[in-house]
Amino acid sequence: MSTAEETTGGEAEPWDEVTPDAARRLLVAAVEAFAERGYHATTTRDIAGRAGMSPAALYIHYKTKEELLHRISRIGHDKALDILRTAAQREGSAKERLADAVSSFVRWHAGRRTTARIVQYELDALGPDARAEIVALRRQVDAEVRGIIEDGVAAGEFDVLDVQGTTLAVLSLCIDVARWFSVNGPRTPEEVGALYADLVLRMVGAKQPDRT
Amino acid sequence: MSTAEETTGGEAEPWDEVTPDAARRLLVAAVEAFAERGYHATTTRDIAGRAGMSPAALYIHYKTKEELLHRISRIGHDKALDILRTAAQREGSAKERLADAVSSFVRWHAGRRTTARIVQYELDALGPDARAEIVALRRQVDAEVRGIIEDGVAAGEFDVLDVQGTTLAVLSLCIDVARWFSVNGPRTPEEVGALYADLVLRMVGAKQPDRT
Repeated sequence: MSTAEETTGGEAEPWDEVTPDAARRLLVAAVEAFAERGYHATTTRDIAGRAGMSPAALYIHYKTKEELLHRISRIGHDKALDILRTAAQREGSAKERLADAVSSFVRWHAGRRTTARIVQYELDALGPDARAEIVALRRQVDAEVRGIIEDGVAAGEFDVLDVQGTTLAVLSLCIDVARWFSVNGPRTPEEVGALYADLVLRMVGAKQPDRT
Repeated sequence: MSTAEETTGGEAEPWDEVTPDAARRLLVAAVEAFAERGYHATTTRDIAGRAGMSPAALYIHYKTKEELLHRISRIGHDKALDILRTAAQREGSAKERLADAVSSFVRWHAGRRTTARIVQYELDALGPDARAEIVALRRQVDAEVRGIIEDGVAAGEFDVLDVQGTTLAVLSLCIDVARWFSVNGPRTPEEVGALYADLVLRMVGAKQPDRT
């Protein structure tokens, strides 16, 4: 169900952090192949073929299939952390920062859903070192959202019984957008982002609900 | 990451609707193999081997690998629908019924997470007819939750701006438990179910929050 349009998620230059161009093309091909057939059913030969390259050319850039998955997962998690950190560190109340974090995180998961699915569902295929690195990034992602919720509780803006559990639920709700979102569905990524920001503010018991 | 314990999810007799015993063993083997390597990387030979049977013996019960996936998906969706229908049709306020629906749906997704992941992530691998059947079941799942929310709105128990979108978010939150839940984590399925029932009642703006 992956198409070039879905893979890019409407972003003008996805994967532009990957250079040179051949390495970027191979990464995009790997995302498409993993999304269609799963990591284990994909060979480096499949990936090279999709990129219009030889297997030998692939090995110049990536030693193993796992290295490709690791690179995709690393970039995906770096971007997720960047989105949440930007929202957490901006000016504004905890309510404004949480709404911003949720809506931008949702938009990213809707737009880059093919990448997000691979990043989430193929985590077990990473080797121990790569996995430990990604798990550390996931802890940082969690800490950004938890920090905003803790700020809101401390400021009396939020009413939360279980900060850790609510943080987990907020992230889970946003991440699962990658599973169900469809460009053929009735909602745009922006609309889902706005709906989810409202629902999450309800989950944290935000005072003075903004219902305009 | 699949183990026999995870596959059964602590249920005494999972898949007991599948008979004879050989057909049930093959189904359990298919769940384990799909969970470990993905649908496309799994062969009927792999599945037969795991079940301690020959490929020829497998074909007595299942004509194709897709038939196994279809059967797993059908049973999983039937069970999901049964859980939600039971909660929707019980006695009680919309608030009680929604809390019951969410907590029991979460417990099932935590306990049967290996099956739930396959059911959710390998949907695209089904052929058109099987897929249409499963999509129809998913609409019924959606309708059960939407019905409870609509009842709550009509009774003045809930305050919901977007019933369809909130229904989608509630189901998504519960389904994604299958992705992140771990028996090594700090929460039991029952604890996650109780937390999520509270969070969902907040999402629908339930009056008189039960915060004991």
